[in-house]
Amino acid sequence: MRDSPQIMARTKRPVTATESGAFVETIELGSIASGPLDGLNFAVKDLIDIASHKNGCGNPSWRDTHPVATANAVCVEQLLSAGARCVGKTVCDELAFSLIGENYFYGTPLNPKAPDRVPGGSSSGSASAVACGLADFALGTDTGGSVRVPASNCGIWGLRPSHGFISVAGVNPFAPTFDTVGILARSADVLARAASVLFAHEDIPRQEPMTIHLLKEAFSVADPNVRQVLNSSVQRLRNLFGGRLRETSLGEIDSQSEETDLWAWYDTFCVLQWAEIESCLGAWVAATKPAFGPETAQNFELVKNLDRRRLREAVQRREKYFQRLKLFLGPNDLICMPTTPALAPLKGTVVARGQSAAGDDYYPRMLSLTSVAGIGRLPQVSLPLAESGGVPVGLSLLAANGRDAFLLSVVKKVAAFMGT
Amino acid sequence: MRDSPQIMARTKRPVTATESGAFVETIELGSIASGPLDGLNFAVKDLIDIASHKNGCGNPSWRDTHPVATANAVCVEQLLSAGARCVGKTVCDELAFSLIGENYFYGTPLNPKAPDRVPGGSSSGSASAVACGLADFALGTDTGGSVRVPASNCGIWGLRPSHGFISVAGVNPFAPTFDTVGILARSADVLARAASVLFAHEDIPRQEPMTIHLLKEAFSVADPNVRQVLNSSVQRLRNLFGGRLRETSLGEIDSQSEETDLWAWYDTFCVLQWAEIESCLGAWVAATKPAFGPETAQNFELVKNLDRRRLREAVQRREKYFQRLKLFLGPNDLICMPTTPALAPLKGTVVARGQSAAGDDYYPRMLSLTSVAGIGRLPQVSLPLAESGGVPVGLSLLAANGRDAFLLSVVKKVAAFMGT
Repeated sequence: MRDSPQIMARTKRPVTATESGAFVETIELGSIASGPLDGLNFAVKDLIDIASHKNGCGNPSWRDTHPVATANAVCVEQLLSAGARCVGKTVCDELAFSLIGENYFYGTPLNPKAPDRVPGGSSSGSASAVACGLADFALGTDTGGSVRVPASNCGIWGLRPSHGFISVAGVNPFAPTFDTVGILARSADVLARAASVLFAHEDIPRQEPMTIHLLKEAFSVADPNVRQVLNSSVQRLRNLFGGRLRETSLGEIDSQSEETDLWAWYDTFCVLQWAEIESCLGAWVAATKPAFGPETAQNFELVKNLDRRRLREAVQRREKYFQRLKLFLGPNDLICMPTTPALAPLKGTVVARGQSAAGDDYYPRMLSLTSVAGIGRLPQVSLPLAESGGVPVGLSLLAANGRDAFLLSVVKKVAAFMGT
Repeated sequence: MRDSPQIMARTKRPVTATESGAFVETIELGSIASGPLDGLNFAVKDLIDIASHKNGCGNPSWRDTHPVATANAVCVEQLLSAGARCVGKTVCDELAFSLIGENYFYGTPLNPKAPDRVPGGSSSGSASAVACGLADFALGTDTGGSVRVPASNCGIWGLRPSHGFISVAGVNPFAPTFDTVGILARSADVLARAASVLFAHEDIPRQEPMTIHLLKEAFSVADPNVRQVLNSSVQRLRNLFGGRLRETSLGEIDSQSEETDLWAWYDTFCVLQWAEIESCLGAWVAATKPAFGPETAQNFELVKNLDRRRLREAVQRREKYFQRLKLFLGPNDLICMPTTPALAPLKGTVVARGQSAAGDDYYPRMLSLTSVAGIGRLPQVSLPLAESGGVPVGLSLLAANGRDAFLLSVVKKVAAFMGT
């Protein structure tokens, strides 16, 4: 199970932790008690506390200027108390500020299904560890896509939960309004089991989805090759759910809106995220003058130079979009969209935010998609249902805020139907 | 308006900032743009960022080991962009870890309506500044009662918002699952105006409360003198809302529960809060060995010695109670309860957590009450409707998660009816 058929086929033998480049350090941390996760092991992104270890946050200066954790993060403690074992801390993008997965200091964790392409970030090592079969699941964080994007790129399952339901205590704050602890997993079943422990849900009755909205403007953002393979996945969803799938446009979600694409969602998200990043990290950057890789240095310049007078209006727009989505999306409704607008970029081609060989608009298009869950406070799962020329492509399902258990039950049903 | 009649009556002249002891530093920070808060000024708790100033968090070691803020916290920026002016940073309890308001290093801000009693904490200076007429409103933070308790003690209006709807970026994390930015205000109208800016709500239609649940177990927790004066306030609420008030017991909220009091809520809250405090501050405490006042030192010992194996079960209970409340409380329902179980303690009588002249159970009883909103992710407003022998006593209204605007509209209606 740990050595997935795909990896075996490519490499003829299992990838080692060293070959994967996924780990900052491997750790043997046994479970604290027996429970529903008995027999599973997990890796932890290097910005989530493990007692007696430091968080590096993907940046040596951060590591040098912060103390050793005295306790496991709440989420880590929950997993260890439910029977899971921890196998290590994983590489992440510097201070979580990238969706690419190429760390200037710690390298690029292997994307085993597409070794010439990036794993995606910022939970790059967590995704790589799972995709390489070195962990059953992994903890990541997702502020603007940092679990969903690497899940899609690496062809595994990834959950961004509803905001506020999994504790972020012991996790480095980045942009608190959007920060979540998410899960990357080798199967829908493992994803749901780990999530169930973190959410501490009681069992919910099985419910069928009422309507699955294929968000038109989101599919429009994607490259033709991504749309093409996802259309086949959507067709298979139709075989399962029939007429409950329907095409829906932004105008139906928000009839008062003048928006005809997701650009305003992207812009709103960026203003708020950058403002919060400056609030969380700006003082440290100014006081420490840390060594940054070139992409990170440019990102922090963007953040520092944000006109914060835009904040009040951005919060207003965020709340407007949030309320519209809340009114629109029933408790048993789902939204379906591409996880990412393009295949994982080839390694070394994304030279700076918004400027890549894949076109200047990689980041804006990506954040147009990922901002829907962020702004809507919605849970989202990326399902590894498609490939384009052997490169993984994720399809996403989103549910209403707080409907994570329902979403995961539908995801498991889809996985069973698709035989994945 | 700024010099309230009560203060004038007691002191014969307005209290100065120095006499109040409310401020760490006074600041003159003009508004950035004209807006709905034109003409109002506000003070900011000393753990919420103001650009070019340090957060002291009520502890000199914290101040010494942290850099100057490079930007205003998101919430501060929203207020300045809406026309309000900032007048200073206010004293708070050390690292926000107290509900008393006596700071070993920075003194005890004046409770002008009961000068021999504590103001309550941890947003002690914010409450004092407003109660002394030195600010129209003030920002505080509320994790376990730090806005509601000082509002009640000082006889002013205090809001703890629904968790997750006001940005905590630029605010020192303490226990993120419960951390909120709240508001203390001199009137219900000012409270609602400031809240409206922070929430960025669109206008909602006026709605009448459906049912106002007087939570029996919460009233039972309070001292006889508190219950007595609050019964008069409740009687006046009956004049306004008639039969919509009803007595409700915990057993009606959670028919499967064996709980007959709020003790399990208190216990659940403490386990989670302490675990998160250790995650947020434990590494700094261990590395810095800061100077603490005696109460704070004891609090951090409690936190350090928490058995974290209790965490998983505590999260499960928290989610169970949360879900029960969510099912029970309709969008137009309210819960009514005492804000605090006892009058503000006399100064110098609370010698350590849980041990005070007011009886060993001051903290447990207090947290039994404040944990309802914390665990339920509910918004709560403390209304200064009562006095016992001249000492202020607050009555609280709570609404369903996300129903902050509705709650504030009811609070304004109550204020108008009561002539406060």
